[in-house]
Amino acid sequence: MAGETVITIVGNLTADPELRTTRNGGTVANFSIAATPRTFDKQSNQWVDGDALFLRCSAWRDLATHCAQSLAKGMRVIAQGRLQQRSYQAQDGSNRTVIELQVDEIGPSLKYATAQVQKMQSGGYQGGNANGGGYQQPQQTQQQSQAPADDPWGAPAGEPDF
Amino acid sequence: MAGETVITIVGNLTADPELRTTRNGGTVANFSIAATPRTFDKQSNQWVDGDALFLRCSAWRDLATHCAQSLAKGMRVIAQGRLQQRSYQAQDGSNRTVIELQVDEIGPSLKYATAQVQKMQSGGYQGGNANGGGYQQPQQTQQQSQAPADDPWGAPAGEPDF
Amino acid sequence: MAGETVITIVGNLTADPELRTTRNGGTVANFSIAATPRTFDKQSNQWVDGDALFLRCSAWRDLATHCAQSLAKGMRVIAQGRLQQRSYQAQDGSNRTVIELQVDEIGPSLKYATAQVQKMQSGGYQGGNANGGGYQQPQQTQQQSQAPADDPWGAPAGEPDF
Amino acid sequence: MAGETVITIVGNLTADPELRTTRNGGTVANFSIAATPRTFDKQSNQWVDGDALFLRCSAWRDLATHCAQSLAKGMRVIAQGRLQQRSYQAQDGSNRTVIELQVDEIGPSLKYATAQVQKMQSGGYQGGNANGGGYQQPQQTQQQSQAPADDPWGAPAGEPDF
Repeated sequence: MAGETVITIVGNLTADPELRTTRNGGTVANFSIAATPRTFDKQSNQWVDGDALFLRCSAWRDLATHCAQSLAKGMRVIAQGRLQQRSYQAQDGSNRTVIELQVDEIGPSLKYATAQVQKMQSGGYQGGNANGGGYQQPQQTQQQSQAPADDPWGAPAGEPDF
Repeated sequence: MAGETVITIVGNLTADPELRTTRNGGTVANFSIAATPRTFDKQSNQWVDGDALFLRCSAWRDLATHCAQSLAKGMRVIAQGRLQQRSYQAQDGSNRTVIELQVDEIGPSLKYATAQVQKMQSGGYQGGNANGGGYQQPQQTQQQSQAPADDPWGAPAGEPDF
Repeated sequence: MAGETVITIVGNLTADPELRTTRNGGTVANFSIAATPRTFDKQSNQWVDGDALFLRCSAWRDLATHCAQSLAKGMRVIAQGRLQQRSYQAQDGSNRTVIELQVDEIGPSLKYATAQVQKMQSGGYQGGNANGGGYQQPQQTQQQSQAPADDPWGAPAGEPDF
Repeated sequence: MAGETVITIVGNLTADPELRTTRNGGTVANFSIAATPRTFDKQSNQWVDGDALFLRCSAWRDLATHCAQSLAKGMRVIAQGRLQQRSYQAQDGSNRTVIELQVDEIGPSLKYATAQVQKMQSGGYQGGNANGGGYQQPQQTQQQSQAPADDPWGAPAGEPDF
């Protein structure tokens, strides 16, 4: 693929990711990232927030599942992906176009948080990693190892309708 | 700040982050990220790895501490920061210049892993977050809550010498 | 300014830039860039175009004037700026939101074209250039030196209404 | 190609591009871009320059030729490409590594300059352009149309030795 408009966005999730199964059996997680610029106001001598940018995001396959298992409303994330445009017919019959992000990489920002990372054996491509497959497994918590048993996102769902 | 060369890099840590205290009392974490491009070889019909790019990185203050607490050798990360150039005198007396990344945001990639995120009450700026301060605390593991007690990175150290 | 979502887009202008004067006396150029990704189709053994992304752009002040004087419909450009969101009321009374690019830097791509560059003495900040102000003036063509005389963009205009 | 570290840099050429022919018959243009960050100093109430980043760049094929024909020392450019690492043996026998940019797109910045763009019929891929091939030819100057006749960069040259 060439000619994609690749961007990186840093911001906060506006809600928990929604995990769904598409009609074709694909797994997708949908969420929005709010990026809030801030400027230094010389008058008041402090930072003030500007208007937020809200960007709808889609992550697919394993990445979708991992997002749903790891991210929650309000978390600050750093995401990289490709800007895409999607047209649809609104309920009033008018045609509208939105710009969304197809997420290729995303992680919780460590600026105001720590993370306990657990590598997944979820098949798929493991290469492209200089040390791929070789990192020391962080100690597993009891809780995490049981997660799949009551995985709330495993249930089939309809086509994303947003 | 304007005119910075801001980049995003996705790759794997070549070693655990090294956390140190500078002479001025600042906290810095140093690590390298290896980014390995891959191309699809039409002959063999499979992806092959290209030459890796190794980029030295510095993260400061709370971000440094969070990196040291969260990241380890081999982990895949997504990092954004500013490219900077640093000159130094090598042991043979010659002057050399290296390009490094001053990391502003970094997180473990969720492509092949999940993460259990824990918000830190580490003071510092908490704004710039549309939902700043508001996200639900993931359940704390016993292990994490004890982490600071035997924090191997807490000890003062010399000036980074890399 | 911090926390902006800075992106770079490469694509073609869908029309000539429209130069206008805002009610406050500011100068703005509006145009759209179409970025078309392409994928290599292994079946047909050739590149095929994907769906284009159309991004509305605004450039301000001297940059606006220079865009209008230099760029035209169909030209391939490389542009960097900040993604911003703007809400407005459509003619049917509904509220809509669009994502646009506030352009900070733009230039004609040299991939399929050459350019004859002419430095402008337009006041404003000239610093931030390692060799600022020092480059050799390309020979001026008769045509360019007369351009301002019949500058079609000089006329005052209404507030951008897009 | 996936997993590349794609960056955009804005800065000034430190010298005219050097155009050469490699042993394999390829055409390459080499140049360096100096990007100078600046910060607003609240004390003096003015912008001050920070340390410049100097990045060596290579452009290939038609892009190389177009760079050599269009760009000159001191010009401000916007360039996008892939960061790459190259190792070599210095004259003292030591092994060194440099990070360079393989330029994919570059153009003269219109921030402090205008440009007269001329499309080239140089073969090669013309697609990936929403309006590819269709833009109105800017009026050609006498000077430009004669350029190829005395093209100083056409002469074969040795392998780039930088």
